[in-house]
Amino acid sequence: MSISVAVSGASGYAGGEVLRLLATHPGVTIGAITAHSNAGARLGSVQPQLHSLGDRILEETSVENLAGHDVVFLALPHGASAAIAAQLPEGTLVIDAGADHRLEDPMAWEKFYGSAHAGTWPYGLPELPGHRERLRGAKRIAVPGCYPTSSLLALTPGFAAGLLEPQDVVIVSASGTSGAGKAAKVNLIGSEVVGSMSPYGVGGGHRHTPEIEQGLSAAAGESVSVSFTPTLAPMSRGILTTATARVKPGVGSEELRAAWHDAYENEAFVHLLPEGQWPATKSVQGTNHAVIQLAFDPHVGRVIVSAAIDNLTKGTAGGAVQSMNIALGLDEGLGLQQLGVAP
Amino acid sequence: MSISVAVSGASGYAGGEVLRLLATHPGVTIGAITAHSNAGARLGSVQPQLHSLGDRILEETSVENLAGHDVVFLALPHGASAAIAAQLPEGTLVIDAGADHRLEDPMAWEKFYGSAHAGTWPYGLPELPGHRERLRGAKRIAVPGCYPTSSLLALTPGFAAGLLEPQDVVIVSASGTSGAGKAAKVNLIGSEVVGSMSPYGVGGGHRHTPEIEQGLSAAAGESVSVSFTPTLAPMSRGILTTATARVKPGVGSEELRAAWHDAYENEAFVHLLPEGQWPATKSVQGTNHAVIQLAFDPHVGRVIVSAAIDNLTKGTAGGAVQSMNIALGLDEGLGLQQLGVAP
Amino acid sequence: MSISVAVSGASGYAGGEVLRLLATHPGVTIGAITAHSNAGARLGSVQPQLHSLGDRILEETSVENLAGHDVVFLALPHGASAAIAAQLPEGTLVIDAGADHRLEDPMAWEKFYGSAHAGTWPYGLPELPGHRERLRGAKRIAVPGCYPTSSLLALTPGFAAGLLEPQDVVIVSASGTSGAGKAAKVNLIGSEVVGSMSPYGVGGGHRHTPEIEQGLSAAAGESVSVSFTPTLAPMSRGILTTATARVKPGVGSEELRAAWHDAYENEAFVHLLPEGQWPATKSVQGTNHAVIQLAFDPHVGRVIVSAAIDNLTKGTAGGAVQSMNIALGLDEGLGLQQLGVAP
Amino acid sequence: MSISVAVSGASGYAGGEVLRLLATHPGVTIGAITAHSNAGARLGSVQPQLHSLGDRILEETSVENLAGHDVVFLALPHGASAAIAAQLPEGTLVIDAGADHRLEDPMAWEKFYGSAHAGTWPYGLPELPGHRERLRGAKRIAVPGCYPTSSLLALTPGFAAGLLEPQDVVIVSASGTSGAGKAAKVNLIGSEVVGSMSPYGVGGGHRHTPEIEQGLSAAAGESVSVSFTPTLAPMSRGILTTATARVKPGVGSEELRAAWHDAYENEAFVHLLPEGQWPATKSVQGTNHAVIQLAFDPHVGRVIVSAAIDNLTKGTAGGAVQSMNIALGLDEGLGLQQLGVAP
Repeated sequence: MSISVAVSGASGYAGGEVLRLLATHPGVTIGAITAHSNAGARLGSVQPQLHSLGDRILEETSVENLAGHDVVFLALPHGASAAIAAQLPEGTLVIDAGADHRLEDPMAWEKFYGSAHAGTWPYGLPELPGHRERLRGAKRIAVPGCYPTSSLLALTPGFAAGLLEPQDVVIVSASGTSGAGKAAKVNLIGSEVVGSMSPYGVGGGHRHTPEIEQGLSAAAGESVSVSFTPTLAPMSRGILTTATARVKPGVGSEELRAAWHDAYENEAFVHLLPEGQWPATKSVQGTNHAVIQLAFDPHVGRVIVSAAIDNLTKGTAGGAVQSMNIALGLDEGLGLQQLGVAP
Repeated sequence: MSISVAVSGASGYAGGEVLRLLATHPGVTIGAITAHSNAGARLGSVQPQLHSLGDRILEETSVENLAGHDVVFLALPHGASAAIAAQLPEGTLVIDAGADHRLEDPMAWEKFYGSAHAGTWPYGLPELPGHRERLRGAKRIAVPGCYPTSSLLALTPGFAAGLLEPQDVVIVSASGTSGAGKAAKVNLIGSEVVGSMSPYGVGGGHRHTPEIEQGLSAAAGESVSVSFTPTLAPMSRGILTTATARVKPGVGSEELRAAWHDAYENEAFVHLLPEGQWPATKSVQGTNHAVIQLAFDPHVGRVIVSAAIDNLTKGTAGGAVQSMNIALGLDEGLGLQQLGVAP
Repeated sequence: MSISVAVSGASGYAGGEVLRLLATHPGVTIGAITAHSNAGARLGSVQPQLHSLGDRILEETSVENLAGHDVVFLALPHGASAAIAAQLPEGTLVIDAGADHRLEDPMAWEKFYGSAHAGTWPYGLPELPGHRERLRGAKRIAVPGCYPTSSLLALTPGFAAGLLEPQDVVIVSASGTSGAGKAAKVNLIGSEVVGSMSPYGVGGGHRHTPEIEQGLSAAAGESVSVSFTPTLAPMSRGILTTATARVKPGVGSEELRAAWHDAYENEAFVHLLPEGQWPATKSVQGTNHAVIQLAFDPHVGRVIVSAAIDNLTKGTAGGAVQSMNIALGLDEGLGLQQLGVAP
Repeated sequence: MSISVAVSGASGYAGGEVLRLLATHPGVTIGAITAHSNAGARLGSVQPQLHSLGDRILEETSVENLAGHDVVFLALPHGASAAIAAQLPEGTLVIDAGADHRLEDPMAWEKFYGSAHAGTWPYGLPELPGHRERLRGAKRIAVPGCYPTSSLLALTPGFAAGLLEPQDVVIVSASGTSGAGKAAKVNLIGSEVVGSMSPYGVGGGHRHTPEIEQGLSAAAGESVSVSFTPTLAPMSRGILTTATARVKPGVGSEELRAAWHDAYENEAFVHLLPEGQWPATKSVQGTNHAVIQLAFDPHVGRVIVSAAIDNLTKGTAGGAVQSMNIALGLDEGLGLQQLGVAP
């Protein structure tokens, strides 16, 4: 018996990617597809890549149109998803690709988002210790941000194994422009971004910083502080995260490698690459996979971890579908078997 | 009962793309994966995007390693595929992604390729009139070139309907760099191609010109001559073809539109877009779909047709798998349900 | 004695490029730099690449601020430039980078622009026959469109020499995204354009079609009709034009090559490349140069000409400065000695 | 009286960029232009962007061809430049764009380059404290590596002012592909690099690490250790460096900002941007300028500095020409007045 799903925010990048994955998911039937300013339009006119769904008409994003499905995906601006989620039936599985329900600390939420905290939901990154269990049977899931997904996958094994110092963690990530959304802004037009790289949200100002610290602190069992700098790269998709932390005295290459190996050896979507092979974002393009490599630099006593994901797939829609599968008791990889579109 | 397939040339772009599609094809089992200079390597080291096949080892490309499968895909340099194909059992379905068996005219072959003609095989572009029938049960299939795929899909409906003049056909195509293969050449390195466009093979010199003319002439029932100019665009994948022909006296927009509509209305992978919407290569990225739009320009009496495909998918590996499905009597779309990876 | 120049529209791409060139022009002093919505801003905040002018403040675009200079560059939306130009003193050299004064035929203007025609000014493409003379001492100059610049440079020698048929001219151009201006539109954002190509204005609908036909007809001495299709390429700058025309009976390669050679052998900025070398847009990036190559395709009786320019330099601001130099009796190449920024 | 200059390695990216700058330098005459495998070729065939020098013929790189000029630029593989330099007259100004003479520590050289150390020359980064003086009248100059240029410009002011801790410095840089040279390697072809980011030389393995540490240690007056990770970005040119260090107790935003301000306020080519404006590599494309911004992140006690340069200009050829100007007593900015080619 097929599961009915509704997707809101379907004219944006996150919503479009959710639809791309669900369209070939063997266990679901796509019900309402909703949008705001594009309501009434043919889906193919705003998401021309969704060939098999091209003739579907975008409905208005409303509780009425979304309710009545087994699963509702919210791909809405922060604030909007909490408002709608609060009105959906408790028995509906609601998966929020936005930020509203990720943070546990209401003060951190208010500091970075400037509004009242809407509460914390189970966090849809099943590869983190203990998270898969929390997602089973869940009716509300907060999909992680794309930067936190890559950062947490990069560093959690070391913190969970007690190998890393909680201070002086430095993360620099490069993201494709789709991370900034489908927004008509001059600084995002092709002429500006092609052939250029630039940072933004520097100095702890990016909203993903508290989310990264929350996840690493949970793994470490102590407070981890992070210097996080995101940069915009001239590509549509992909995040390459370079994460580095001081290792505890006496820890060396083998112990480090073993920790990452053990963390991911049974994971279908997160891969520690063979030694000597480094991640490239294109190798995960369009997929739910993450690829990771690490090196210990004894001259500075730090481990450097490189992780690559597709920000829209593993970093958003793929993680959302994977979490849905777990919550519903389905095979975790349903709808997520795509391999990388490379070159 | 699963069909066993072997893929040669698996370290190149065409071979890698065949594997990407076959890896999620529900009806096949991937047997030998072969290469030449990379034989012995882990597939994941040369095709890191093929996560589920990463631990497979590349075998040497040889008749011995390829024989014994139900289907053999040849993604080899021209000349090499004919030599191997000649030694494979008659009962094996051999699908040649190379050029060796596309042309019907031995003189055209010799002029453009400089070697003896290896014979002509059924042509794997099922959307052309009469071609799907020829593929059913076939044991040898020649996969079309990527430029001919886009050019023939663009113009065949008009010629088949008798609406276009056979002279003064002009086609200008822009291709992503993957069309030039995975070759270590200075003119192909990123620093040269990023931010630049350039033509090549101008003046009838490109080997795809006779293949395009062969297909259009067959549709027209008379000799069609084409001025074809390929250009290299700063992207990895995708072909955008702009094709224009003079319309016969008295022919107008409605008649033209009807011809294209009728040709493709029952096709799963070729789409005449709604009026006003124009093809973009990204909308078909990673898919077996082709999108087409046309406009009649009365002030010059010409129809201009725009067609976008992914050169590696519909233009190579997707067409190959689609043709395999037809030849074997499978559902034509098996393994080809991926939607476009966009943005 | 230095010539004072004012630049309007300085927050846009055309205006910024005019300033980039004028900043190193040894004969001019940059006076007012004006904008509309960005008036009051530091120039460096909107044009960060103009380091030496970064602390200049953008003034409001008005007749008052522009008058009183020896030269005024207008880089404004069509319609706006004609309104301002009409109020500037007759003795001021006004150079309009917009469309308002390019077309000679008021009916063509009204058809494509939908407003009253503002009159025709000397056309700033000095390499066309007779045009350099018309620019000497001129007080009003219309800068050609970027597509017409590349198209006219590509085909004029053949028409001027009487070698080409006036019908069935086909031009397909690929342009970088800066040709669409610095506009906050969703279809222009990096996520949409990176990795994609698409056509627009197909079927004679682009406003540059009548401008191209006007120029070619003047060269041919008879009415030339053109099928022109522009496409958007994933790069910031550059136009690659592929132009093809039927040659008159009896005309062959040598005669064609001689016509182009003779047309440009004394030009400093337009180069017929050595045989076998084809244009690449990056080779002219940031320069006022145009590079051209041609091939005769006897099997279809057509010449194919490839031309590459930088749409913002030779296609807009470089042509404007070159025309200014001629009008003022300066060395034609002043301020235009930059070589290509490649790779 | 014009200064005669010779340029070796002229078919590569560094050599081509040196020529681009020298071609518009008002004080020099370009003499021998030499190459190795391309000797005998027309310069325009390998560097088509150098329009005004296109007809020059590449000579063989040899002491004979290079000697007899006032200045010789060496843009050769490491090892090769030391061998040639040793044979050039002492009175010739030799400027080595390669690595051979950058490092002061022979053991560091041998560890990272595996050959005997050729000696240390004055280091061509005049904006570092005390360096401009050392370059005056110098006859041998080592041009810094591109990553060290951006890293040292980013962090030196803080170390020179005694504001930063010498441990836990972390630098992550993204470079355009031209930094890898004009080499026919499969991993550099456009199909691989377009749309992808990847790290390399991770874990202290990159040869630029000791060069960065050497410069920062000199500024700090104590040994500074650096975790440096370079990444490859999908663009031709540009380096964006994100550099972060712990600040000493009690140091805050104002003191930090003042240090950077004071260091660069009198520099023509290095700019601390106005607060709130962050570097973008395109804003320095084709120029000798560097743009810098910093932020203090009190929650981790670190300063994050972002610096953008063009790796081929300020990072190589521009620094070389600037150093030449200083050595010869010319105006430091001669030949370096180009503004950024943006968008």
